[in-house]
Amino acid sequence: MKVITTIDEMQETILKDKKIGKSVGFVPTMGFLHEGHLSLIKKARGETDIVVLSIFVNPLQFGPNEDLSSYPRDFERDHKLAENNGVDYIFYPSVEEIYPEPLTVTVKVNARTDVLCGRSRPGHFDGVATVLTKLFNIVQPTKAFFGMKDAQQIAIVEGLVNDFHIPIEIIPIEIVRESDGLAKSSRNVNLLTIERDQAPVLFESLQGAKALIENGEKNPNIVISYIREMILDKTNGNIDYIEIYSYPKLLELTQLEGKIIIALAVKFSKVRLIDNLVLNIQ
Amino acid sequence: MKVITTIDEMQETILKDKKIGKSVGFVPTMGFLHEGHLSLIKKARGETDIVVLSIFVNPLQFGPNEDLSSYPRDFERDHKLAENNGVDYIFYPSVEEIYPEPLTVTVKVNARTDVLCGRSRPGHFDGVATVLTKLFNIVQPTKAFFGMKDAQQIAIVEGLVNDFHIPIEIIPIEIVRESDGLAKSSRNVNLLTIERDQAPVLFESLQGAKALIENGEKNPNIVISYIREMILDKTNGNIDYIEIYSYPKLLELTQLEGKIIIALAVKFSKVRLIDNLVLNIQ
Repeated sequence: MKVITTIDEMQETILKDKKIGKSVGFVPTMGFLHEGHLSLIKKARGETDIVVLSIFVNPLQFGPNEDLSSYPRDFERDHKLAENNGVDYIFYPSVEEIYPEPLTVTVKVNARTDVLCGRSRPGHFDGVATVLTKLFNIVQPTKAFFGMKDAQQIAIVEGLVNDFHIPIEIIPIEIVRESDGLAKSSRNVNLLTIERDQAPVLFESLQGAKALIENGEKNPNIVISYIREMILDKTNGNIDYIEIYSYPKLLELTQLEGKIIIALAVKFSKVRLIDNLVLNIQ
Repeated sequence: MKVITTIDEMQETILKDKKIGKSVGFVPTMGFLHEGHLSLIKKARGETDIVVLSIFVNPLQFGPNEDLSSYPRDFERDHKLAENNGVDYIFYPSVEEIYPEPLTVTVKVNARTDVLCGRSRPGHFDGVATVLTKLFNIVQPTKAFFGMKDAQQIAIVEGLVNDFHIPIEIIPIEIVRESDGLAKSSRNVNLLTIERDQAPVLFESLQGAKALIENGEKNPNIVISYIREMILDKTNGNIDYIEIYSYPKLLELTQLEGKIIIALAVKFSKVRLIDNLVLNIQ
């Protein structure tokens, strides 16, 4: 495994690999890897000849009051995990390498942003789309792997790749869960014991909603109420949002049909958890 | 020569050519080809194995009060000119092919826009940068050829390619001129006879400015005054702007040094002419 820190070396290295016909899988991350990331790496390892992991805490996607400086970092541990899981190259550039001066151009996301987590993070997805446009051109992958945990991010990346005709296949990877259903997250350790016991209710409520819909429920408000009741009843969490949209366009629905996403965010005392479910309704 | 109208066919065709090692030259245009365009095609023909000419009148770069509907079009003539000059593929998509629905993402140009022609055309260069991002990903050229007539456009495209790490070499091509120095333009036919006689003064004033600078003049205001006096004295045109900036960053200068652009726009009775000169001051 090789650690590459400059854009030029990354582009040249990949160009050589692609010239001899290798396919390239790309897993973009902000580091501090957890099992969710590892599932992306394993998937890439199985599907492409070369696996590139990028680790870059992107200042452009943090708001002024967000936790850029305190964002957790542990490159040594990430390095070990990447090596053990078959990564070929870690792309690990400095902020100065990616942003030597203010950008003359940025990507503006015009849709799919004013819902779910995007509503409370203005400009966040512009920063995500801009750095991904840069990374996609630097790494030039055949396929890029993203976790469905952040389903809105995938929806926006699908829009980016589709609208700009970037020749990359986006591969969404299922959420990795604990045995009791709680979606894995580095943040779960910050749940109080009682909250950790209650947290699987988020996934249970999504499963219940799925059953409701499979039994013919077409009204999104009834499904949302069902989820709300269950979470209020069985946890101490404060509901941030429970929303249902078409997927990946994230448009409002009056009737549940086609591909939809049910997504929720719940605040516990020290941590906010998110979860979601994408369903294909026939 | 083949005319290609769909994005998929264009991408697949080029992919095949690149797989067998061909280099691809790209000349993006809005059609109604003139000698300026032909000089780009000829240059591409000399430098790359495959030459792609795109013809697309891009609605996104026209303002609400601009001449989108009356923009001149003549595909048959363009087709003949392209064939005679060795183009391999004309990419000629419909507006629906490029914009089937509103874009979820666009490119925002944050610098180099509020000077020269950009000042009076808000959003124009966002539209240019967005469609070029799409076209660059569709055609995936090795080199893209642009005329220095629109020097601001090249400056912005250099920023786009550089900041997004698009693996394309941008080749600026000298302005093509009439024998008396007037920069070639489809619009020149709309000059009155007396104006056509005066129009070479624009280039003469730039040549005079060059001589001044080569003789040691470092003050941009003195150079601008010199040009203004000459144009006011020898033409009936109304000066829209005469400006000097660093190139390609288009930053203001108090001292003339390094790479600079002297650019001007002059309105005649029915047509506005632009011209410019890029100098490398040692």
